[in-house]
Amino acid sequence: MRVDGRHLRTIRPLAVLEGIEVIDQTSLPAELRMRRWRKLADVAQGIETMVVRGAPLIGVAAAYGFALGLRDDASDVGLAAHAEALRRTRPTAVNLAWALERVRQTVAPLPAPERAAAAWAKASEMAEADVAACRRIGEFGLELLRAVPRRSKGPLQVLTHCNAGWLATVDYGTALAPVFLAHDAGVPVHVWVDETRPRNQGLLTAWELRSHGVPHTVIADNAGGLLMQRGQVDVCLVGTDRTTANGDVCNKVGTYLKALAAKDAELPFYVAAPTSSIDLAMASGDLVPIEERSGDEVRELFGTARLPVESPVKNPAFDVTPARLVTRLITEQGTCAASREGLAALLGGAR
Amino acid sequence: MRVDGRHLRTIRPLAVLEGIEVIDQTSLPAELRMRRWRKLADVAQGIETMVVRGAPLIGVAAAYGFALGLRDDASDVGLAAHAEALRRTRPTAVNLAWALERVRQTVAPLPAPERAAAAWAKASEMAEADVAACRRIGEFGLELLRAVPRRSKGPLQVLTHCNAGWLATVDYGTALAPVFLAHDAGVPVHVWVDETRPRNQGLLTAWELRSHGVPHTVIADNAGGLLMQRGQVDVCLVGTDRTTANGDVCNKVGTYLKALAAKDAELPFYVAAPTSSIDLAMASGDLVPIEERSGDEVRELFGTARLPVESPVKNPAFDVTPARLVTRLITEQGTCAASREGLAALLGGAR
Repeated sequence: MRVDGRHLRTIRPLAVLEGIEVIDQTSLPAELRMRRWRKLADVAQGIETMVVRGAPLIGVAAAYGFALGLRDDASDVGLAAHAEALRRTRPTAVNLAWALERVRQTVAPLPAPERAAAAWAKASEMAEADVAACRRIGEFGLELLRAVPRRSKGPLQVLTHCNAGWLATVDYGTALAPVFLAHDAGVPVHVWVDETRPRNQGLLTAWELRSHGVPHTVIADNAGGLLMQRGQVDVCLVGTDRTTANGDVCNKVGTYLKALAAKDAELPFYVAAPTSSIDLAMASGDLVPIEERSGDEVRELFGTARLPVESPVKNPAFDVTPARLVTRLITEQGTCAASREGLAALLGGAR
Repeated sequence: MRVDGRHLRTIRPLAVLEGIEVIDQTSLPAELRMRRWRKLADVAQGIETMVVRGAPLIGVAAAYGFALGLRDDASDVGLAAHAEALRRTRPTAVNLAWALERVRQTVAPLPAPERAAAAWAKASEMAEADVAACRRIGEFGLELLRAVPRRSKGPLQVLTHCNAGWLATVDYGTALAPVFLAHDAGVPVHVWVDETRPRNQGLLTAWELRSHGVPHTVIADNAGGLLMQRGQVDVCLVGTDRTTANGDVCNKVGTYLKALAAKDAELPFYVAAPTSSIDLAMASGDLVPIEERSGDEVRELFGTARLPVESPVKNPAFDVTPARLVTRLITEQGTCAASREGLAALLGGAR
């Protein structure tokens, strides 16, 4: 998307098999800094330290990293070692394993000298496929946004939680894709951005929106309920880390509270869910293991301030929004009800 | 309550009409520091900048401030000006206007030379009445807590938002009074403490609980919904800045989201509401003016860190929990349903 008038993606290949350039997300939103990675080890370390983050993006980055590894050692032993080195960087990210497996299946049957180039091509294909999927989510989502009843004059008022923008993907984003497309299509839109404690990923969302010129306002996570009560929000739009077979949505902790408030105010609550994030093997959200992260994420703010908290801290990273609170899922294949039936009708027998 | 083994109150009169000493709540929990105010202007500025905060406490502080103002100018013009200067410091809290009106009614009929001393005596009477009221709220609340069904073994799991502890009153607190009394009575209790962005008053709650020895854990505001979903909370207990005639509860922004989650998990949601915070003249919560505070409260954390947010920020300080989400109100006169009928039965024609 646009940053200071130029088009950027989160990841960009240099010359074939030379390396990749990525946006350093640890320096955002304070500073836009690029990093160039020319070896598998650079990529692995960058994923591990969250220089790149967001499930779709780390899948693509890992695929390029795999190709760079094969450039330096394309033997069968090397192939297995590269996959393992990249897989262990973020052991819980399902997308990462999925992306590596796709590259492995592509190159394993080939003679060693052809593997690196084939892996590079596959990584590029995956990057373009991610852009296309996000763009489609944007188009389907825009149709829904156009139909949302307005509670007041002025722009369409969207509330979002966390960052499901283009920084989490290669371009466009998931939940923010419909917002960018609406803005670009001349639909007046304003976004309420939850700061999203404890890691404050809402500030990445604010940076994206500001860079692209979309009107928005940052709020504390506590404020969204009041805004919905008082008619200042028309629609909620969030991403998902995992949507289960019954339509329950596992997303950044706090999402559930906004879904409850949207229901109470009779507002639509839409979830942008790439089909790669839909886990039909998991029956319902209460079965999803919730990642516990360090209490220091609550105690610290961007690593600069440390709250004077001597007390114990608990820091679960996700919660589950029950399907009954989700108005509709938006995937790259179309939209559907958040239910077993809705997902089956959309995805058919393909999955 | 106890701090390092000694008993403290939030506010203490110096010699008659000389001034007051208060705990500086902006320096907590990092440091326990006292401030002495000797003029009305000191008190007004201290309330506005939240050196003292919490609806009951600012009522008492304002009463003392009123007396200090009358010491310097006890004319009818002065009387009106003092009341106005103090009233406008915090628009949402009803106790403030209530406390000022009580002092005004006491002193207005008196000759000017007698007014200051009478106001001072009234302020002291109100301070003692507040301590007694909080203690009664603690006793009535403890009865309710003893009857709460436990979702798991171990201590009773209480979730609270913001700070309705003794720092918000003269002593004991409102929502925390039942917790302190439970702990002192040997009822095992553990408190989940919302950090309560943007001003993080939850850290005051954590400080109170730690100082008094009550087990507790700090969480991001976003986490409470998950904890309720997963059976880790038995009861919510919060304070209120203003409860309207129909039982709607205006309290720190974010309270409403927790009430929704409690309803969804079928947990009791109790509100400690001193009768001084019940505003029978206001029909319902949607009519309550919501104080808008500076966006810098979201951008800054304890004045130490500044978030790299270039975007606009909106910072409403309160929201409204509809009466239908409130299981019961706890006042110093007893508990009642959060409804017009419940309040009428409890308060009778006295108000």
